[in-house]
Amino acid sequence: MIKVSVMFPNTPGARFNHEYYRDRHMPLLKSRMGDRCKYYTVDKGLACGAPGTPAPYAAMCHIFCDSVDAFQAGFGPHAQEIEADIPKYSDLAPVIQISEVVVEKS
Amino acid sequence: MIKVSVMFPNTPGARFNHEYYRDRHMPLLKSRMGDRCKYYTVDKGLACGAPGTPAPYAAMCHIFCDSVDAFQAGFGPHAQEIEADIPKYSDLAPVIQISEVVVEKS
Repeated sequence: MIKVSVMFPNTPGARFNHEYYRDRHMPLLKSRMGDRCKYYTVDKGLACGAPGTPAPYAAMCHIFCDSVDAFQAGFGPHAQEIEADIPKYSDLAPVIQISEVVVEKS
Repeated sequence: MIKVSVMFPNTPGARFNHEYYRDRHMPLLKSRMGDRCKYYTVDKGLACGAPGTPAPYAAMCHIFCDSVDAFQAGFGPHAQEIEADIPKYSDLAPVIQISEVVVEKS
């Protein structure tokens, strides 16, 4: 299994609507990807490891799929629609990482 | 619930032993934190969003706890022992983020 992590750098002054992201954007992505998205998780950045320092990322989501091919098959045909929804909740450009899920849940 | 994400930047030439991390380091952390670590996940970086580009992070783990206080109570007393284990699998300095879990599993 793989996960696609979409991470929004926590840039001072940037905009991120966590409610829209949770209630509208991620359900849109899931509805378009269908079963090719097994499930997803959403995080809201609170802090860095050191006290009083900001979180590196304002928000992250992790999209779990059987394979990179499954992700591309599910996301690709809807990429334009899903990406066009980003300005509705943020002006940040995300960092994207594809990972192998080594331990799904200990 | 919160998650503590420990992310190892994918630096060229750096060392990261994924087997040790999965089989020794993370079980050590879990054994020391006990129930204050509800569970954890482990990722191995495969790629960036753009084809042919390296993953931003060589590896990540995400440690799930009821609260920041629970994490600190579980990790703090064992921080020295757990951090002393890092050189056994990597020479990378991790980026750490504490997040609120907005969606645990869709």
